[in-house]
Amino acid sequence: MKDFSRLEKKLKTKFKNKDLLTQAFVHRSYLNENPDLKFSHNERLEFLGDAVLELAVTEYLFKKYPEKTEGELTSWRAALVNAKMLSEIAQKIDFNDFLLLSRGESKETGKARQFILANTIEAFIGSLYLDRGLDACEKFIKNNVISELPRVIEERLFRDAKSLFQEKAQEKAGITPSYKVLKEWGPDHQKHFVIGVFLKTELVAEGDGSSKQEAEEDAASKALESKGW
Amino acid sequence: MKDFSRLEKKLKTKFKNKDLLTQAFVHRSYLNENPDLKFSHNERLEFLGDAVLELAVTEYLFKKYPEKTEGELTSWRAALVNAKMLSEIAQKIDFNDFLLLSRGESKETGKARQFILANTIEAFIGSLYLDRGLDACEKFIKNNVISELPRVIEERLFRDAKSLFQEKAQEKAGITPSYKVLKEWGPDHQKHFVIGVFLKTELVAEGDGSSKQEAEEDAASKALESKGW
Repeated sequence: MKDFSRLEKKLKTKFKNKDLLTQAFVHRSYLNENPDLKFSHNERLEFLGDAVLELAVTEYLFKKYPEKTEGELTSWRAALVNAKMLSEIAQKIDFNDFLLLSRGESKETGKARQFILANTIEAFIGSLYLDRGLDACEKFIKNNVISELPRVIEERLFRDAKSLFQEKAQEKAGITPSYKVLKEWGPDHQKHFVIGVFLKTELVAEGDGSSKQEAEEDAASKALESKGW
Repeated sequence: MKDFSRLEKKLKTKFKNKDLLTQAFVHRSYLNENPDLKFSHNERLEFLGDAVLELAVTEYLFKKYPEKTEGELTSWRAALVNAKMLSEIAQKIDFNDFLLLSRGESKETGKARQFILANTIEAFIGSLYLDRGLDACEKFIKNNVISELPRVIEERLFRDAKSLFQEKAQEKAGITPSYKVLKEWGPDHQKHFVIGVFLKTELVAEGDGSSKQEAEEDAASKALESKGW
């Protein structure tokens, strides 16, 4: 069994219930090889931690960026919590050293390991939530996940809704979306645009914003939601 | 402007910041007709409230049902927070009387109104979260959303993963999934099964459980996630 006190020291986080910490790292494959283990695997903790992570990131973005639309914040959040990003974060904090995997699974690297690392960091957040509450999770998430936001923005790691909607529309309907201003009002320094996004003549969604670009992005975001793409 | 104190009385919830309560009900169409409104629309609040709702429901299910797998809890959660269910809940608590919509939008009923009601209840939760915190939201969600769980379970309003995966597999790949026991162990009173779900010869995912049915459901749930269906 691994020495999790090393991880606690590294993360400067002490667990009251050490079993919760250990269980976060139990992959289902480990149970297959260790059927008498007193722990179950970490998937329920992952279920919980995923929702904690979602709220912590959502609240941070909501409060930090009062001018950004829901569509933009959704793009940023997706870039922060996708499997690739979470697995990179998990590796940075040495989660690879603490995973409890079967021998066979230990040999797999690449995408399978990426999913395991991402799921484990969510399970860890689930355990931390149960052991220490939301505040402790917000602190961990701020220091390890939100900390990636500047890089996400600078390197444009987020998929903006317009490019994503165009890709999906071409893939699923063979049509390139078009945008049209439906309404605009206000003085030059405080304009307001309502823009519709169309697939040929079908108005898929409307978006708004204080610039045409913002309104188009908002419309695309609504369109993705409306189409379920 | 509507009298929101009536709603506060009905929900037995007093807002410190009345503007937050009002803003939760501002649909984007209302802004189109009222461009000088001091409020923006409710979509950012919906973004926040959606994440609060997710955590509250997730945590409740996680703690109340320690024996249920992540896949089962995911199905139940989906049935509680989908647009149809949320709109029914919103109607029960008279949200229709408080929506701020354009004249044109007010005439729309049916699916469009369903989405508006569902989004508004999420925006309301976002406002409640900012105004009164997580505890107040958990109370509201317990009394109005979780309260639907017995009906969800009894009337099987949840889509179990097996039937959903079969539907998707037939739709997207023209194949009916098959299940095979990969591993089993343990005495009769404490069996453990590992089952693989296959599309022809492709092993899509593995699930586990204390019965074959549970393990198949778990495998199907993992398969849906793995395929992105």
